[in-house]
Amino acid sequence: MSSAQFSDSTLSTLWSCPQVADIHDAALAERVQHKLDFKTKPQGSLGLLEQQALRIASIVGNESPQLSAPQMVVFAADHGLAAQGVSAYPVDVTWQMVENFLSGGAAVSVLSRQNGVALNVVDCGVARDFEVREQDPEHKLPKADEPRLWRRKVAYGTADCSKGPAMTELQCAMALRNGAELVKKLPGNALLLGEMGIANTSSASLLLARLCGESIETVTGVGTGLSSEGLRRKIAVLKQVLDFHAGVQEPLAVLAAMGGLEIATMTGAVLQAAAERRVIVVDGFITTAAVLVASRLQLHVLQRCVYAHRSGEPGHTRMLAHLQAEPMLDWQLRLGEGSGAALAWPLLLSACTMLNEMASFESAGVSTKR
Amino acid sequence: MSSAQFSDSTLSTLWSCPQVADIHDAALAERVQHKLDFKTKPQGSLGLLEQQALRIASIVGNESPQLSAPQMVVFAADHGLAAQGVSAYPVDVTWQMVENFLSGGAAVSVLSRQNGVALNVVDCGVARDFEVREQDPEHKLPKADEPRLWRRKVAYGTADCSKGPAMTELQCAMALRNGAELVKKLPGNALLLGEMGIANTSSASLLLARLCGESIETVTGVGTGLSSEGLRRKIAVLKQVLDFHAGVQEPLAVLAAMGGLEIATMTGAVLQAAAERRVIVVDGFITTAAVLVASRLQLHVLQRCVYAHRSGEPGHTRMLAHLQAEPMLDWQLRLGEGSGAALAWPLLLSACTMLNEMASFESAGVSTKR
Repeated sequence: MSSAQFSDSTLSTLWSCPQVADIHDAALAERVQHKLDFKTKPQGSLGLLEQQALRIASIVGNESPQLSAPQMVVFAADHGLAAQGVSAYPVDVTWQMVENFLSGGAAVSVLSRQNGVALNVVDCGVARDFEVREQDPEHKLPKADEPRLWRRKVAYGTADCSKGPAMTELQCAMALRNGAELVKKLPGNALLLGEMGIANTSSASLLLARLCGESIETVTGVGTGLSSEGLRRKIAVLKQVLDFHAGVQEPLAVLAAMGGLEIATMTGAVLQAAAERRVIVVDGFITTAAVLVASRLQLHVLQRCVYAHRSGEPGHTRMLAHLQAEPMLDWQLRLGEGSGAALAWPLLLSACTMLNEMASFESAGVSTKR
Repeated sequence: MSSAQFSDSTLSTLWSCPQVADIHDAALAERVQHKLDFKTKPQGSLGLLEQQALRIASIVGNESPQLSAPQMVVFAADHGLAAQGVSAYPVDVTWQMVENFLSGGAAVSVLSRQNGVALNVVDCGVARDFEVREQDPEHKLPKADEPRLWRRKVAYGTADCSKGPAMTELQCAMALRNGAELVKKLPGNALLLGEMGIANTSSASLLLARLCGESIETVTGVGTGLSSEGLRRKIAVLKQVLDFHAGVQEPLAVLAAMGGLEIATMTGAVLQAAAERRVIVVDGFITTAAVLVASRLQLHVLQRCVYAHRSGEPGHTRMLAHLQAEPMLDWQLRLGEGSGAALAWPLLLSACTMLNEMASFESAGVSTKR
C-alpha cells in the first residue's frame, strides 16, 4: 500500500503554489464581441476563429491582443513504470529524442522552426546525464553549454509506481518549483507545452482515472503503438497501480504517487504561466494531464488555456470533455512532443490578426445586413 | 421550362476542356510512405499531417515536395436570383467586398497577408464597373491599373435562374475559358480558391441537389445569416428553380442553368490547375461546388485537391461526403471568400516541412520499436 504521508497539505509546506486569479472581465468581453460583430463579415461567421480571438483577448487583458515570442517548452523525464513493459519503445528513446529535439530533426523541432516558435527542452528527470556528450563521438549533442537545454533533473526517472510512489514529496515539490521558476525566465506571452517520456501515457491515464473517476480500460490506449496483447498488459499493470495507491485522492498526492517528473514540472509551469496571464497552448494527452492537475489546484488556470488538438489516444477525448475544452485540430495525432501545439500556432496568430486587422463595415464602406 | 438547347456537347464546341490525367504513381507513393515510416516518430502518429504530405507529394510528383508562391484567387460575381430575396445581404455587398479585398481589410486579405499568400481578385461578373473608381471620392479602390484585380467580366451578373437559364452557353463557355487562361499566368504551384457573390450559396445548393440527387431542403442553409422565415423562402425559391430546369442533367448544362459566373470561372480555373498539377486548396461550400462540377468533367481533378475546412453551411458536409474529402478544420466557418483556405495554408506547409526536414531513426540515432 501507498504511504499515508502523501497529502497536499504536507506538500504545500514544501512548495508555494502560484495563485491564479479569476480574469473574467465582462466589459472587456463585450468590447471584443462588439469589435468582432462589426467586422466585414456576417456575425459569428468565422466560428471558432472568433472564439479563439475572444479567448486570447481575455487572457492578455487587451481587446487588441498581440502574441509575442512564443516559447515551446518540451518537458522530458523517464518513468520507472516502463520496467513493467507498458510502452512499445525502449527507455533510451527518451534521451535520444532530447538530443533529436536539440539537433533539429524531431517533429516538434521542424514545426516550431517553421512557425517561428522558440524551442526549449527541460531535463526534468531523464535517466541519463547529458553533460558527458562532448566526450561521446556518436552523440555530439547537447553540448554542456547548450542554452536551449534547461537542466532541472530531480532524479534519474521516477520510481516504479506499481511498487511505491513515483516520487517522494520532496521530488514532487522540487519539480513543481522548477517548472514555475523556469517560466519566470521565459520571454513573450505564450507558452506552448510539449513533453517526452517513454511510458508517460500510462501516467496520464492514471491521473485521469483517479482524478476524474474514469475506468482505466476506457482511458488507456496504445500510446506509441502497442499491440493488442501489449494494451491488455498495460491495462492490467495500470489497474495494479491504481489498487496500490487506492487511498490517494488529493491532486498533488496523486501526481506524486502516479505522475511523472515531466508532468510535475509542467504542472508548476502551467500554474506560473497562468498566474502571469500567458496564453497556454496545450498539446495532447500528457500535457492536458498536467493542465488537469493544475486546474485542481487553481481552477482559473483553465481560463488561460487553448487546446491545439484532440489526440488519437482515447483518454484525451475524455480528459478534454472534463475540462470543457474544444480543440482546434482533430487530426489523429498521437506523437506528443508538443508537435500539435507547434502545428496549431499559426491558427492562434490568425485569430489575433483577424481581430486586429480586419476592417469594420463602416471603415470599409460595406453595406450591413438588411 | 428551360431551353433544351443547353447540353454539354454544344458547350464543348465553344470551349475546350483541359484534360486531366490520372497521376496515381504507386512507386512514388511507396517511397513517400517509406520516408514517413522511418521518421523519428511511431508509424502513422502524425495522422492527417502524414496523409496531407503524401497527397501533396503525389500532386507535385516529388517525394520532397516544395510549395511555392501560393496564389489566392477570389472569384467574384453577382446573381440574378438575388432578386428573389434568397440572401440576408443586399447585392451591393459583392462589389463593396471586392474593394475591401483589395484595400486589405477583409478576412481573406488579412489571413492571406499573414500567411504569405498572394491575393488576386477576379471580376467574373460583378454588377458594377470598377473602372470608374478614380472619379469616385468615396471609394478610391480599385484603381484602373490595380494589378491584383483581374477584369474578366462576362456579364453584369447572371440572369434570374428562376425565370430562365442563369447564363447563355456562350457566357458559360467564356467564363470557363477565362478561368483556365488566368491560371496559366499564375506563378507558383498552389491555387487557393476563394469567392464572393451575394446569393451564391443558392447556386451551390442547386448544383449539389441536381448533380448529386440531394433534396434541396437538406442542402440549403442560412448562408450569410437568414432568419428561419428567410430560410423557408430560400428553399421555396430553390425548389422552383429546380422545377424550372427539371430536364437539365449534364454538368455544364446544370452549371449554365443554375450556377454563377464566379463558379463557372472557378470551374475552368480548377480544371486548368489540375492539368498543371497545382495543389488546389478548396475553401467552403461554393468553391467545393466548382470542384464538384469540374470533377464531373474530369474525374482526376480530385487527386489534386486538399480541403481546408468543413463549413457551417449544411450542404457542405454532404458535398464533401460525395467527394470523399476529409477537411483539415471543422471550425463552423461560413464566410467564404477563401478565408478558410488562407487560414489552413500553414498546415500544408507543415506537411511538407515534416516530410522534408524531419530526421530518420537512423540519422538521429534513435532506437526503434521493440
